[in-house]
Amino acid sequence: MTVRVRIGTEPTLETLIAGVAPVDEDTRGAVLRRHDALAKPPGSLGTLEAVAAQLGAIAGQCPPPVPRTPWLLLAAGDHGVHAEGVNAWPQEVSAAIVGAVCQGRSVSAVLAAAAGIPMTVLDAGLAHDPGDQPHLVRHPVRTGTRNLHVEKAMTANEARSAIGVGAAVAEAMITDGADLLLLGEMGIANTTSSACLIAAATGAPAARVTGRGAGADDAVLARKVAIVRAAADRCQATAPLDILAALGGFEHAALVGAMLAAAARHVPVILDGVVTNAAALIAVALQPRLAGYLIASHRSVEPGAGVVLPMLGFEPLLDLHLGLGEGTGALLAAPLVTSAAAVLAGTSMMEDLWFNG
Amino acid sequence: MTVRVRIGTEPTLETLIAGVAPVDEDTRGAVLRRHDALAKPPGSLGTLEAVAAQLGAIAGQCPPPVPRTPWLLLAAGDHGVHAEGVNAWPQEVSAAIVGAVCQGRSVSAVLAAAAGIPMTVLDAGLAHDPGDQPHLVRHPVRTGTRNLHVEKAMTANEARSAIGVGAAVAEAMITDGADLLLLGEMGIANTTSSACLIAAATGAPAARVTGRGAGADDAVLARKVAIVRAAADRCQATAPLDILAALGGFEHAALVGAMLAAAARHVPVILDGVVTNAAALIAVALQPRLAGYLIASHRSVEPGAGVVLPMLGFEPLLDLHLGLGEGTGALLAAPLVTSAAAVLAGTSMMEDLWFNG
Repeated sequence: MTVRVRIGTEPTLETLIAGVAPVDEDTRGAVLRRHDALAKPPGSLGTLEAVAAQLGAIAGQCPPPVPRTPWLLLAAGDHGVHAEGVNAWPQEVSAAIVGAVCQGRSVSAVLAAAAGIPMTVLDAGLAHDPGDQPHLVRHPVRTGTRNLHVEKAMTANEARSAIGVGAAVAEAMITDGADLLLLGEMGIANTTSSACLIAAATGAPAARVTGRGAGADDAVLARKVAIVRAAADRCQATAPLDILAALGGFEHAALVGAMLAAAARHVPVILDGVVTNAAALIAVALQPRLAGYLIASHRSVEPGAGVVLPMLGFEPLLDLHLGLGEGTGALLAAPLVTSAAAVLAGTSMMEDLWFNG
Repeated sequence: MTVRVRIGTEPTLETLIAGVAPVDEDTRGAVLRRHDALAKPPGSLGTLEAVAAQLGAIAGQCPPPVPRTPWLLLAAGDHGVHAEGVNAWPQEVSAAIVGAVCQGRSVSAVLAAAAGIPMTVLDAGLAHDPGDQPHLVRHPVRTGTRNLHVEKAMTANEARSAIGVGAAVAEAMITDGADLLLLGEMGIANTTSSACLIAAATGAPAARVTGRGAGADDAVLARKVAIVRAAADRCQATAPLDILAALGGFEHAALVGAMLAAAARHVPVILDGVVTNAAALIAVALQPRLAGYLIASHRSVEPGAGVVLPMLGFEPLLDLHLGLGEGTGALLAAPLVTSAAAVLAGTSMMEDLWFNG
């Protein structure tokens, strides 16, 4: 769906950070106790019980409300580092994929339709204009980032702008009914940018966080690793916003804003693959309370995901060897999240089974 | 939904076995090649690509038809071995849970409703009559099995009868539109019976295949292991039907029949936890071609599942530490299976993206 976003009134980063309250640990415990009283062996729903407890902690309600309107936000942006030959595909692919998404012909669009989940696509900074499209919100901060290998990808103000735009879009979606925010992204070369963010923010070695993205061969992978190593060495920033500006993309920044805005409204957020993981790493560094609102949908085949997820304490719901992005993993995991809440709302208590059964 | 089953015309086991054709390996290859031509990095949908290829191989069509009517069959039965104290719950719980399922108040019923999946419940041999219920087909072969610890649980003819009933119900569901068969079960003490089947059929040590089921404490677990060890030692049968009769339950037998009947109609089958895994082990031993029609939804916390799944060559779609049964894992995985087919049917080819994008 296309949402109306009035630009010029976006929240500042400081407002977004201040808006996130801690999740409610008392309610988490109450949900787990309620689960133990349902007509099933205690603990037998495994990870779904933990998800239900998290939903309760986010909402401050036991049982938690069942999400009725999961909604996918896909943030798109292009990357100046593409000029270094980190991706075999031309940069025009980003806008072409955005077009396919908006017209219902991408993998993510097909999965969303199959699950009955609406989507909104944000052009946060594509190099090529995808034109007017259904479901598309066009607020490019710039036509792609600068080449992070030779200069900072974004200025701090550009990163702030993209954060504000992402937050404004998420807020508009929530105003229109979204009660479970799925995140995804598109952007040729954004696994390189993500690996740079992860290496710089965690100190993990470049070779450990850099993967093949959309099919890099050995030579391209070696080039990516060298760029990530150089970027992490060069980046002396420690403030999350500075790391984001130096190495990230407009879609990363928009995702950071969307996460913070959703958390401020007590809306749970489902992450996708390594690009959203990298954005989450920055966002949680900006506001540690945010972690309680985030749900890891899957463990991407991109190695950076395997570094970020345990560092943030997230156990992914799926491990299907996905490496597509576009919100595909978030879409596949969304029914598990809504089901976790539905079970608590609809199942008999063991006690009632005996009285009525 | 309640289906009409005319008993007296069930297929024989020999007919069922003869009805299963090999899956089509040429089509499996064609689906994988088609996947590589979609507008996404080749291989980036990971396990879902393998599932789509399996659906193609089952249907003999590329792209495979998208399942429109996933349908859950829950087979219920009671177990004489309950008398050995292998479960803290009274045997009446089986029928009470059946009642809760049929009335929409069990975990499985809530998950099915959330996913829009109809269910049919088969009383294949409950000890206590659940009475008339919506969605319930009542064809108990006997009021529970005999105690496998002291005699054969079923005669060979009883096992054949339950196989025939399960097949007849599955055939009726398929006639009514089911094009993806989800399997599940209910039956107090049936993890003990399942562990016996797995130990006897695979030679795996009793301690390795026996778990806590619906919450056995250490003392009960030790008793279960001793019973499983004794059962496997005592059972000298090598014919799958004889192992099934000596150690299995009516729900296992009904599931065997349902699997064979579905495969004969080229309908894919989604397994659930360890009880359905044990039934699959017997069914595949009866007809090895069947394996190509079966999809493992999840890896149960019951240790027997971890023995059976790799032995059958199945990679489960989910690993959520589930241990509930009732078809819950099959219900949670069904959207992944239908999505795998939907992606192939709906996504642009890379070539078209460039012409039109």
